[in-house]
Amino acid sequence: MPLPVGSRGVTDGTPANPLDAEDLRTRVHKALTDHLTAQSDVLDAVSDDLAPLMDSVGDLLTGGKRLRAAFCYWGWRGAGGEDCAGIVSVASALELFQAAALIHDDVMDGSDTRRGQPAVHRRFAALHRGNHWLGSSEDFGVAGAILAGDLCLSWCDEMYAGSGLSPESLAAGRAVFDLMRTELMCGQYLDMLEQVQATTTVDRARHVILYKSAKYSVQQPLLLGGTLAGASRELLATYDVYGRALGEAFQLRDDVLGVFGDPAATGKPAGDDLREGKRTVLVAVTLERCSPAEAAVVRRSLGDPHLDAAGVDRLREVMTDSGALGVVEEMIDDLSAQALTAATAVEAPARAVLEQLVAASTARTQ
Amino acid sequence: MPLPVGSRGVTDGTPANPLDAEDLRTRVHKALTDHLTAQSDVLDAVSDDLAPLMDSVGDLLTGGKRLRAAFCYWGWRGAGGEDCAGIVSVASALELFQAAALIHDDVMDGSDTRRGQPAVHRRFAALHRGNHWLGSSEDFGVAGAILAGDLCLSWCDEMYAGSGLSPESLAAGRAVFDLMRTELMCGQYLDMLEQVQATTTVDRARHVILYKSAKYSVQQPLLLGGTLAGASRELLATYDVYGRALGEAFQLRDDVLGVFGDPAATGKPAGDDLREGKRTVLVAVTLERCSPAEAAVVRRSLGDPHLDAAGVDRLREVMTDSGALGVVEEMIDDLSAQALTAATAVEAPARAVLEQLVAASTARTQ
Repeated sequence: MPLPVGSRGVTDGTPANPLDAEDLRTRVHKALTDHLTAQSDVLDAVSDDLAPLMDSVGDLLTGGKRLRAAFCYWGWRGAGGEDCAGIVSVASALELFQAAALIHDDVMDGSDTRRGQPAVHRRFAALHRGNHWLGSSEDFGVAGAILAGDLCLSWCDEMYAGSGLSPESLAAGRAVFDLMRTELMCGQYLDMLEQVQATTTVDRARHVILYKSAKYSVQQPLLLGGTLAGASRELLATYDVYGRALGEAFQLRDDVLGVFGDPAATGKPAGDDLREGKRTVLVAVTLERCSPAEAAVVRRSLGDPHLDAAGVDRLREVMTDSGALGVVEEMIDDLSAQALTAATAVEAPARAVLEQLVAASTARTQ
Repeated sequence: MPLPVGSRGVTDGTPANPLDAEDLRTRVHKALTDHLTAQSDVLDAVSDDLAPLMDSVGDLLTGGKRLRAAFCYWGWRGAGGEDCAGIVSVASALELFQAAALIHDDVMDGSDTRRGQPAVHRRFAALHRGNHWLGSSEDFGVAGAILAGDLCLSWCDEMYAGSGLSPESLAAGRAVFDLMRTELMCGQYLDMLEQVQATTTVDRARHVILYKSAKYSVQQPLLLGGTLAGASRELLATYDVYGRALGEAFQLRDDVLGVFGDPAATGKPAGDDLREGKRTVLVAVTLERCSPAEAAVVRRSLGDPHLDAAGVDRLREVMTDSGALGVVEEMIDDLSAQALTAATAVEAPARAVLEQLVAASTARTQ
């Protein structure tokens, strides 16, 4: 069933206000809700015991900035694609992919919280503990999260294939859709390697964020939307430049928020990235610029699961005083400027939205 | 590039000997190898450090009985589908799905070995240990296996969509393909619940194996092949009966092999299922039939990771002496007979192969 085009009674396929991201968010939310409702029926038919699996996915998907969906949708529109339910469905599929990545990533990082809620593996561990079941609650938690992530991966694909866009269009988009999935897993693996090898350089850290975040957060959703709409080679090249630059800026902002962000806004405890030992570009720049004594403090503190508030503050100080924070903020500015320059080659109304998305991706607090 | 039809110079699209499962296995193996080679190029372009990820999947996929591929292929042929590279590709995609399920399942069960090799999470743990990397080798192992499984899930879908079968055919098959994936995750979750709740009954254990194994091992591959070929409603009903019965028999044989199998043939240590605390139908029947004293022994031993050879022998004795093993063998015989009866409604040459596959699924030693 096609979704309503907008909430303002527009009938020609164009939202009343193309900058109204809220409208797209509402439609993506509805598409995801409809999909999960249908899947819920499948799970209910198998067993009543599956409700926690469904709930874990549903609760996670109520949150999120829907940025990937926005890039996909506006990549389509920028290439002349008409507004339709099909592209909203594909855009929503990317939110399921993101959910899968987050659920599995939180297991791999041992994170406790996500979007202000307990991480999915913690939810299942709590369910196990609360029911006094046999065996290890942590192991049950990991298993539940593996399965919840696997479901999201399958459903992402199901939503893509079942979007209602033409088979030719979907076949063309496959090149991007498939590469996006494979490259993200690669990026996640490289990210893990950086953490356990702890020999990060700025170049290596930038290589990792390209694959673990920049591509699938901005560049590939945009290229996917464009490819599905049959974008010209020139426009895809523009998306490529915009997406790579903004994708990197997006992740650099994430890394800064991971250390300096307000927990109330980010939904993650302060300093969590430091306790998890994430080898971010910010960390690499810090190690390049600080004194040997400070570097020793950074190396000792990073990845210490018991790092307290004073330890977090000390690291923040080194990052600020060494000028590393300033360097990263400058990188974000430069990359944002590159993205804005690239966006000028895109036609209205998508151009204005892509410009707006630069700020939404980099000036955010969550 | 289409794969060669067979190894015997047949040109009319029909293998020289439809019973020659070896021939199909060779073609499936080649299709998987080609797919992995292409993916290897993608990974190499990202980083040299990804080789262990690729190798873990490649090594796992060299093994396997290729039964799911066979059911899919012969489901297609039984519905009048012509032999072609496309159906071999879809059949091979199911082997990637199976690999994903095994890799993630071994993490969830904490299994050490698979197909006679270390389980994928153990491989990554060993890699971590051998390199003296930071942090926990076990955690690194789990993370590597999560990503390897995720890659297999994505590649399964990629192979399905890129098989070259017509878009109409693939769209029709989606109903089976999508349900198969969702239901398997459900089955895995229910299986986990049985282990931690330890309140198994025969009925519940049978319900679990339907979803965690019977459907995706036999019934759904067969229905997928049939649906892709446009099978009649009658034929799909036949496949449904055959697949459900044989799928259950297949898993019951697996459960018996998990306790009584020769480790050299199964590739898993003797008694591993018992140490993992699997609540199989065999266990449930045993608990129904044995004395209270024996039941206490079973309950105490199941899930004990340190259960020694004598303990395994003791459980085997209870299972045999209580008559439970005989009951399960009878169930396998009954279900096999049901499948054979159903197969009579299928046209030649598929009928003969489906008959042969009953024995291959239930009289096996690995």
